[in-house]
Amino acid sequence: MDYKFLQDLDVPVQTKIAMIIMDGLGGLPMEPGGKTELETARTPNLDALAAQSALGLTVPVGPGITPGSGPGHLGIFGYDPLHYEIGRGVLEALGVDFELGPDDVAARGNFCSVDGAGLLTDRRAGRIPTDLGKELAKLLRTIKTDGVEFFVETVKEHRFAFVMRGSGLGDALTETDPQKTGVAALPVRALNPGSEKSAMFANHFIEQARKLLADKHPANMILLRGFAKSPAVPTYHELFGLRAAAVAVNGMYRGVAKLVGMTVLPVDGDTLVDEFAALEKNWHDFDFFYLHVKKTDTAGEAGDFLRKVRVIEEVDALMPRLIALKPDVVIVSGDHSSPALLKSHSWHPVPTLLYGKYVRADGIAQFGERACARGGLGVLPAKDVMPIALANAQRSAKFGA
Amino acid sequence: MDYKFLQDLDVPVQTKIAMIIMDGLGGLPMEPGGKTELETARTPNLDALAAQSALGLTVPVGPGITPGSGPGHLGIFGYDPLHYEIGRGVLEALGVDFELGPDDVAARGNFCSVDGAGLLTDRRAGRIPTDLGKELAKLLRTIKTDGVEFFVETVKEHRFAFVMRGSGLGDALTETDPQKTGVAALPVRALNPGSEKSAMFANHFIEQARKLLADKHPANMILLRGFAKSPAVPTYHELFGLRAAAVAVNGMYRGVAKLVGMTVLPVDGDTLVDEFAALEKNWHDFDFFYLHVKKTDTAGEAGDFLRKVRVIEEVDALMPRLIALKPDVVIVSGDHSSPALLKSHSWHPVPTLLYGKYVRADGIAQFGERACARGGLGVLPAKDVMPIALANAQRSAKFGA
Repeated sequence: MDYKFLQDLDVPVQTKIAMIIMDGLGGLPMEPGGKTELETARTPNLDALAAQSALGLTVPVGPGITPGSGPGHLGIFGYDPLHYEIGRGVLEALGVDFELGPDDVAARGNFCSVDGAGLLTDRRAGRIPTDLGKELAKLLRTIKTDGVEFFVETVKEHRFAFVMRGSGLGDALTETDPQKTGVAALPVRALNPGSEKSAMFANHFIEQARKLLADKHPANMILLRGFAKSPAVPTYHELFGLRAAAVAVNGMYRGVAKLVGMTVLPVDGDTLVDEFAALEKNWHDFDFFYLHVKKTDTAGEAGDFLRKVRVIEEVDALMPRLIALKPDVVIVSGDHSSPALLKSHSWHPVPTLLYGKYVRADGIAQFGERACARGGLGVLPAKDVMPIALANAQRSAKFGA
Repeated sequence: MDYKFLQDLDVPVQTKIAMIIMDGLGGLPMEPGGKTELETARTPNLDALAAQSALGLTVPVGPGITPGSGPGHLGIFGYDPLHYEIGRGVLEALGVDFELGPDDVAARGNFCSVDGAGLLTDRRAGRIPTDLGKELAKLLRTIKTDGVEFFVETVKEHRFAFVMRGSGLGDALTETDPQKTGVAALPVRALNPGSEKSAMFANHFIEQARKLLADKHPANMILLRGFAKSPAVPTYHELFGLRAAAVAVNGMYRGVAKLVGMTVLPVDGDTLVDEFAALEKNWHDFDFFYLHVKKTDTAGEAGDFLRKVRVIEEVDALMPRLIALKPDVVIVSGDHSSPALLKSHSWHPVPTLLYGKYVRADGIAQFGERACARGGLGVLPAKDVMPIALANAQRSAKFGA
């Protein structure tokens, strides 16, 4: 879909759309013939909503593609994740709530150990404690030079986000991690002329870091990888004419929401109840709300089937608070699947529910993978959900006469 | 789908395909839990056909896109409506059966009222009677100039189709309607060098019209908008190797059929019975038949649920006459949805039935939205139906060895 095309069809109205994303929602039975996490969960509220909804299965990135959280979110947000790539450095910066500018170049950094000859002995510096990581980050922040500003933000243990800010910085850069020990860290090389300035500054930073960390073994050197700038993503306002708000307690999801121009709402606390309270509090000020549930994914990745079931039930119990706000359109979906059976993200299509007054309801009173496979939305690219939601919120004009 | 690709797979055979398009077929229940128009209609013949058919839901233009009649028809005819755009001027000319040439530039015209200072007082000239519109059109036809031929055809009331015929006429032109009263009509401006000649002639025509209409208040001036040339659409014969015929009583649908190279058949009268009779009469002379049913859409747009139900039942009652002709493949579908609930075109996918000897039948003995949602065609772009129909008519060769 051509974005300009959607913009031309915007209709100014007062309708509200809520998108509840349970991270890694899609699942699998633990044994053949069994039920998935979502099918096992007791979800009377979601089932009642499903009866008045169109159901389907969304494919976040492409058939058979297991998405990371970045691409998974871009997909359900309505973007083609193969077109708008979020580099690893950008994700790392977003994850620590760093306010990434459009010209900033971000990288994943980590402390590592080198011997007297400068050869790597441990690529993760023995996973130093986060507190030590923070101390060393302070040291790295003393590195200054003309023409570019450096930022260092601790993620956890040996990991940190590294950002260069300045003009004319390209991000076509090689990484310094040789992916093995017994050899020296590699220099940063520019892959195009527009990135030569970046390469020079990155190498300067690394050289200064080496000197500052010389007596800090095991964290006596750094590695940088995944250099990237923010993709120039059109915002929700530009694209869909929506004043959009995000409710998420984890940095990376707040970051991706910011990337598409959503206003990230403050949440008092980090529970689901706190998240729904934030949504209620801001209901009158926005047209679109994205609410992120992290713990479905955490449980799936931990292989904890029953914990994932319980988190889904917790979300179900909160659904009446959303419905009480009388949203015009509700989307309940996930950014990808994370079956407990696989203990990881997976490629499986994601159960998706679209509720609204003008939705052609399937009359299937159950929200689950197999129920969604029979739904009228069919199996569809995740990026198609937003245009359909906008139409149901009567926010799209007719195309052609 | 690459068109050249389909052409290479043409197989010369004698099979016949019939496509019955009920305009705006798709619907919605009037209240939650209810049935749609098509589900409410008593359709024993379509249900029996459905039992031997593959069912699905077609998306005319794109997810969430509400199609106009032009794009809706191009879609079910097998074309990507985002690629072949039919401008408003072209639709207006097609609607009055004007034989639009490939280089003609068409526009929507209307009479309007201006005051002594030339400022608009009524953009529709008080919706003058059609007879007066026809009288004034005769007057406008007296405008002649060297290098280009002008055509004026009354649509109804204040509306007319305006066409310029000549060489080197581009259609990148601005419209003259300022969309408000109290200001003067705008001049036509060329948006590229190739359209400067068109702009000059259009402005010349408007200037002559102003003089001729000076004493014809309330219709003392004209407005022109939606300048466009016919899109260069490959014909059904070029594309599919089909000798195609169209049965439609409304001008616009005859026009779109002509655009794709169908022969428009004469219809004695304007009832559905007359249309089916025209199809029977010409059965031996063509490979493909498109039969258009207008009144489903008219009823939907009027919000008349029961009238739409009755029109569908009327079509059902005529289906045995089609089946008696022993078509090899039958498509029953719509160009878009027009739910009575919305009183307008809508974005909802369209119930679609594909019958044929070699169709893998779903065994669902019902033709309705929810039945189609469970069908083997799935949710598919409307433009994919024709290639599938051709294959079922054994008109596509094997691709590759």
